[in-house]
Amino acid sequence: MLEKVNLLQAANNAGLFEYLNVGNLNGHSLSVLQVEDRTLDFHIHEHSDELFYVIEGQFDIGLEDGLVSLKQGDLLIIPKGMRHRPVVTSRVKCLLMELEGTLDAGNTGGAVA
Amino acid sequence: MLEKVNLLQAANNAGLFEYLNVGNLNGHSLSVLQVEDRTLDFHIHEHSDELFYVIEGQFDIGLEDGLVSLKQGDLLIIPKGMRHRPVVTSRVKCLLMELEGTLDAGNTGGAVA
Repeated sequence: MLEKVNLLQAANNAGLFEYLNVGNLNGHSLSVLQVEDRTLDFHIHEHSDELFYVIEGQFDIGLEDGLVSLKQGDLLIIPKGMRHRPVVTSRVKCLLMELEGTLDAGNTGGAVA
Repeated sequence: MLEKVNLLQAANNAGLFEYLNVGNLNGHSLSVLQVEDRTLDFHIHEHSDELFYVIEGQFDIGLEDGLVSLKQGDLLIIPKGMRHRPVVTSRVKCLLMELEGTLDAGNTGGAVA
């Protein structure tokens, strides 16, 4: 039987800065994580769009033309090739999705599970 | 500037049984919809996994070996080729994601935007 995943429960089980895989869709990885007080360097994913969804809390995503503020229930898709960086000043629990292999130690600010 | 989407607000703006596109990720379509009192026939998507996420409310997904009950915040991914059908007995607002072109009038029970 297929297993459902409750995103908040899964995020609560993820360690701080730990990307916990919660599923795969057509070669894409879905992961949840908790982040706090971390701003990454601007970076680009050349081969994949990237989805951010806020499960609980809030954070900002910096783009070349400003900040997008995301709150609980908000979703943002960064097109591939677009410079961006997460700006996290408080605890946030979020879902990320991108082509498998897109994330690495240089662009996550944490451990990729 | 990129536009964020609040999933609940978007679903509230979708008509009943209307698939409202809220984004695209690497050739996949993300859509929100409201459904009420509708059970679809069992069907298969041969070329795409399919993601269901409950924004508000609850519904079941029938599989060959039983029902998976999904509540707010729950996510389920149906692997391509797996027979399934949504079983909706009350109002639910949900997000769907699959390869563009996967959904049609024969497998949605509603209007594909």
